[in-house]
Amino acid sequence: MGRPFTARLGANESTFGPSPIAIAAMQTAASETWMYADPESYDLRHALAKHHQVMPANIMVGEGIDTLLGLVVRLYIAPGDAVVTSAGAYPTFNYHVAGFGGALHAVPYKNDHEDPDALIAKAQEVNAKLIYIANPDNPMGSWHGAAAIQNMIDRLPSGCMLVLDEAYIELAPEGAAPPIQTDAENVIRMRTFSKAHGMAGARVGYAIGSVDVISAFNKVRNHFGMSRIGQIGALAALQDNAWLKHIRNEVATARNRIAQIASENGLAVLPSATNFVTIDCGQDGDFARKVLAALVADGIFVRMPFVAPQDRCIRVSCGTPEQLDAFAAALPDALKVAFTPTHGKLG
Amino acid sequence: MGRPFTARLGANESTFGPSPIAIAAMQTAASETWMYADPESYDLRHALAKHHQVMPANIMVGEGIDTLLGLVVRLYIAPGDAVVTSAGAYPTFNYHVAGFGGALHAVPYKNDHEDPDALIAKAQEVNAKLIYIANPDNPMGSWHGAAAIQNMIDRLPSGCMLVLDEAYIELAPEGAAPPIQTDAENVIRMRTFSKAHGMAGARVGYAIGSVDVISAFNKVRNHFGMSRIGQIGALAALQDNAWLKHIRNEVATARNRIAQIASENGLAVLPSATNFVTIDCGQDGDFARKVLAALVADGIFVRMPFVAPQDRCIRVSCGTPEQLDAFAAALPDALKVAFTPTHGKLG
Repeated sequence: MGRPFTARLGANESTFGPSPIAIAAMQTAASETWMYADPESYDLRHALAKHHQVMPANIMVGEGIDTLLGLVVRLYIAPGDAVVTSAGAYPTFNYHVAGFGGALHAVPYKNDHEDPDALIAKAQEVNAKLIYIANPDNPMGSWHGAAAIQNMIDRLPSGCMLVLDEAYIELAPEGAAPPIQTDAENVIRMRTFSKAHGMAGARVGYAIGSVDVISAFNKVRNHFGMSRIGQIGALAALQDNAWLKHIRNEVATARNRIAQIASENGLAVLPSATNFVTIDCGQDGDFARKVLAALVADGIFVRMPFVAPQDRCIRVSCGTPEQLDAFAAALPDALKVAFTPTHGKLG
Repeated sequence: MGRPFTARLGANESTFGPSPIAIAAMQTAASETWMYADPESYDLRHALAKHHQVMPANIMVGEGIDTLLGLVVRLYIAPGDAVVTSAGAYPTFNYHVAGFGGALHAVPYKNDHEDPDALIAKAQEVNAKLIYIANPDNPMGSWHGAAAIQNMIDRLPSGCMLVLDEAYIELAPEGAAPPIQTDAENVIRMRTFSKAHGMAGARVGYAIGSVDVISAFNKVRNHFGMSRIGQIGALAALQDNAWLKHIRNEVATARNRIAQIASENGLAVLPSATNFVTIDCGQDGDFARKVLAALVADGIFVRMPFVAPQDRCIRVSCGTPEQLDAFAAALPDALKVAFTPTHGKLG
């Protein structure tokens, strides 16, 4: 629209910013950006291995989860191979599946959660090579406990790999992530510095898996794909536990505030394990789309799920008090606009 | 080897650094890296379009030329399709061709230049879908004038696209680049901020082509692949003509110094249109490999061509006076070691 949004609450970015230590490291690295990044991400990979108590050979650093998902699809999916996901789950994964000719099969959410039983059953039915699940989930913010995910892993059909997208895991309650088992050849887990670490623009993600699963990336990845500043910033961010704790507090405060705003407008929110909150607008998708359009027109950037019945909701990223005040100020009018009957169409 | 090199002169990085204006812009952007980059690279693409006097729709910004080359191969090459390059030219292009199942055909260099006539003849012979040429060339530093490249374009077989890698073009003499013709559907040109602009670690490259050729990237590219800091740094670097002029001067000075060092050791250099100089060690590949190994052991990181007869040479990036002094100090001993006959092998 040619003007910045009043409140940028649509992309689940961490408006609270990256760790000040990471910012300082990136600023220092800026003058050294004439050098290529280390193609092996040696320092970052070793630090991540220590952090997760795995071997460096269990970690592949890449240019964000999007890039890593593309490589996984390229490695495992030949044209026509079946892939299973949830209807309305992460569209970029679906984009990669389509791009490499995979046959995508989607199962519905169950009570606004991705449905492990349905995903496993569909994978068995279509002989899937990959299942995608995000835990916590985007766009609903819901999550499963570790036992449910572990149970899913234990029931994977032979020849089927689970792509477990844990982009939001640092913001989930304790006990949402099953233990990392690096001897499992049928699970690849995705993590990122984009969400809790507040470095979406730096493009640093990583995969955790068995040595064989991880080494396969070397056949197809761009060996010089990483940004040097991002690599150095991520290494610094990983050390700053105090900032991560601060972010968890900010996110918890913002979740509560969004719930309060929703409640003041007679709306319910879904419990969230992420840095966004999904508000149930209480009607159908057409209604929620009107609410969203009115908010966007008022400078409040939010998004919504694509698929019914989740599209009855809008998705609001955790923002600063000022941003959420702006959202609170805009929501009543947006609901009023959405409730106003349309008596005719202007062609 | 567990210690930094005394002189990092092997990766054709611009040791003179990026524009101070670009460094400042990247430092400012560091605190905003919680935001994703603009997936359309709108500002940078428009600035590049203005710079090249083309339309924004003729420009695709990507995560370095490597990524863009991978996307071009993915878009144009089905398994078994023929691709033509020069033996010893850019290995990352070959990696992408292999990765997507293309059949690579290589023609020899001619007098240490890539050979447009042989590339065209081979493309006709094997019905190639793509020809790759770098002008100026890496690893030899040689170049063709615009007329030779334009003549090559004019003779492209039907159904064959030229991938014209101009990574070093800002460092070439005037008149090395043919005019940009955005109505040509069979040429895609690659440029980068990694070389003259000194931002190798930021991963910002771009392709220039017809609207159709450029829009095809949108089917396969990672829409959120760009680093925000890199995008902002590149935009600033593009405006800093004074720095580019300074770099051209530094590179010219370093080229002369490398030629002088070579001459003092009885060696010749090849004329260079790049930020490196290829030194002819005057013997065979085994000899040059010994020279290189001795230099590396002495903390001087240089590289060499992979293929005979170019592998009689070593490739030295343009460095600071201090770095080139270190090279000058190490070269005589390296040559002495290489000239020493090996009387036996130790198993």
